[in-house]
Amino acid sequence: MTVRDGTFGSRILELADALARHSESSAELTCTYLTPAHRAAAADLKAWMAAAGMETQIDAVGNVVGRIAADNPGAKTLIVGSHYDTVRNAGKYDGRLGILLALTVVEHLQQNGRKLPFHLELIAFSEEEGVRFDAAYIGSSAVAGRFEPDYLQRRDADGISMRETMQLAGLDPDAIPKLGRRRDDLLVYLEVHIEQGPALLAANHPVGVVTAIAGNVRWLLIIDGVAGHSGTVPMALRHDAAAAAAEIMLFVERHCASRPGTLGTVGQLAVPNGAINVIPGRCTLSIDLRARDNKLLERLAAETSAEIERIAKSRGVRIEVKEVMRMPAVVCAERLQTLLADAIARLGLPAHALMSGAGHDAVMFDGITDVGMLFVRCGNGGVSHSPLETVTAEDADVAARVLLEAMQNLR
Amino acid sequence: MTVRDGTFGSRILELADALARHSESSAELTCTYLTPAHRAAAADLKAWMAAAGMETQIDAVGNVVGRIAADNPGAKTLIVGSHYDTVRNAGKYDGRLGILLALTVVEHLQQNGRKLPFHLELIAFSEEEGVRFDAAYIGSSAVAGRFEPDYLQRRDADGISMRETMQLAGLDPDAIPKLGRRRDDLLVYLEVHIEQGPALLAANHPVGVVTAIAGNVRWLLIIDGVAGHSGTVPMALRHDAAAAAAEIMLFVERHCASRPGTLGTVGQLAVPNGAINVIPGRCTLSIDLRARDNKLLERLAAETSAEIERIAKSRGVRIEVKEVMRMPAVVCAERLQTLLADAIARLGLPAHALMSGAGHDAVMFDGITDVGMLFVRCGNGGVSHSPLETVTAEDADVAARVLLEAMQNLR
Repeated sequence: MTVRDGTFGSRILELADALARHSESSAELTCTYLTPAHRAAAADLKAWMAAAGMETQIDAVGNVVGRIAADNPGAKTLIVGSHYDTVRNAGKYDGRLGILLALTVVEHLQQNGRKLPFHLELIAFSEEEGVRFDAAYIGSSAVAGRFEPDYLQRRDADGISMRETMQLAGLDPDAIPKLGRRRDDLLVYLEVHIEQGPALLAANHPVGVVTAIAGNVRWLLIIDGVAGHSGTVPMALRHDAAAAAAEIMLFVERHCASRPGTLGTVGQLAVPNGAINVIPGRCTLSIDLRARDNKLLERLAAETSAEIERIAKSRGVRIEVKEVMRMPAVVCAERLQTLLADAIARLGLPAHALMSGAGHDAVMFDGITDVGMLFVRCGNGGVSHSPLETVTAEDADVAARVLLEAMQNLR
Repeated sequence: MTVRDGTFGSRILELADALARHSESSAELTCTYLTPAHRAAAADLKAWMAAAGMETQIDAVGNVVGRIAADNPGAKTLIVGSHYDTVRNAGKYDGRLGILLALTVVEHLQQNGRKLPFHLELIAFSEEEGVRFDAAYIGSSAVAGRFEPDYLQRRDADGISMRETMQLAGLDPDAIPKLGRRRDDLLVYLEVHIEQGPALLAANHPVGVVTAIAGNVRWLLIIDGVAGHSGTVPMALRHDAAAAAAEIMLFVERHCASRPGTLGTVGQLAVPNGAINVIPGRCTLSIDLRARDNKLLERLAAETSAEIERIAKSRGVRIEVKEVMRMPAVVCAERLQTLLADAIARLGLPAHALMSGAGHDAVMFDGITDVGMLFVRCGNGGVSHSPLETVTAEDADVAARVLLEAMQNLR
């Protein structure tokens, strides 16, 4: 390594601060798809990539693409990407960290006249969060050839369609299908992202290798029991819908805690029109199950489903389960996990392996090319989607050096 | 017994049907304090009592009082009472059954020229449910000398005060304090009431002797944990407010199920603004604890409180508990439990003993005179506060004969 400690880190944080100046609100960072703030951020990114010596363009879907061609025109292409849109009242690093970190690596390679044996595309995806049009992965799905044309009809809160929004921004929605890369042209897809959770913080490691992006099953449950007077129905004769929900909740928690690689959450919970002296006749709840691979996900869903049936039967309540999402897991390529782990080891650090519970742009490239992901430690207890989201310059520096090392060893 | 089987029962049900004609709504039975329907019901009750040979009056608070004096003017007074107001969309028997059943017993005594060695007052209390003015026990509290003068300032949904309402109905609110009976003048207080629960139905007994009216503690809890992404926070690092609520709920259920004479209910439950993919940072719930005596109630509350603290500590969440009600238990007098049990036994039936979880007018007489209560089996799974509430003529008949027998053996 020829890089001085700290060279990357402080620059990455400065760039993140500069990019965060563009916001739809002066009080907070909000940068949703194709708003003026979003287009200003894209312009900055394009200028920075150009200054780093890349060929640049803003593509038909608003992605900022920087390219450095290999000497061999027939070489394959490494895509390094992440997104520059944000949620409302966001942190400065979610998505952007991966773009800016890769940018500093490109700057370093160019400054040092280093050539790579493959084409490099650094893509700042225009949209991943799904905020403005309730449609996520707009940017990466286009590059992966998976853009959903029906999305163009979706309207934002002001009633403007995605198609109109694109046209107003000077983009050509009809050119989106042409953005899809040919599988044979791709080498691999790499993404660096802030962890958005506390695992690396708890383990005291600056970076970690993602083993998989979790599969996700989401259910909405309606439990119908029998309402009754809290003072007159003996405990043994009750069919309490909320107590059934409580039993399901603790099962999900206990079950996932005992099965490495799974997560289970009841995020929505209510007794509609509940009264302090009425045994709940109805209770509604959501269940979000995640697992590091599809076999584990299927098993987790089946076991949870069986437990729900058992609880319904034993308590004499009716439970309706409606599945609202089933996203398969994306397993990161073994060879890219090894590539990243070796790069981390070469810095004298332990190669912490962890699952990504949240979805990322990388998901779109599953089945298109091999996918690898590096996570960077998230401060403040791991909070993200919040202005409290933090990354240290030291950790960003480590992550940039790992990416540089990995890119130099990638074949 | 000189009474033919069925004599009381069919008449009681006919009277309940007749009384239910007076309603604020043509579609359902609603009869709240001092509405025209309520005053029409009072007029019927007064007429029926008079026809049974009682001295009658409607007192200052709207109670319909029927009296039969004993030969000895210095005798004490037995009060038999229950209420004739209803909840909204009510059943025909809650409160009214006890009045009408006692009325048929009085009719029988008078027809047969039977004299009792004490004065008898049959009181149809004007208000127990607390619907119109959010103030309960208006009628019985006045007779017990416990009327809360502040209630007169309360306003109904139309903004009319209780005082104005009484004056418009020709009542004299300033005369209410004079309604309180002198303790020394009272023999005992007896009340017959529909069970409003499924215990007698489950045990297959027409009537039961109430051992106590449960004490009741009510809490509202706010649990503050740490919100987080459902996909990024490992199970072991969570502080899930809803999971803490679930643990409390199952504790309350399990604990009360294992302690005879207690009831515990979580009737209100919510994750405010919960999202399917967010670990709940906050959860609110109510806890309603009941017990047959105050020692048991205190112990139940203390044990539940300790468990809440333990759960808060073990899960790293903050739990705020606000007590919104603490009503002591009313223990029915042993001698009246025996009197009623003997009367039941004399009919060849088992004397089922049970707790009343709900409050009744009898509560107001605790500490004023001895209190005894008889419950009558509630059909349809024990549903009450509903048009689905039912009582059979056979069960009403048994209850009337038990009351007759008990009154004849009371000294």
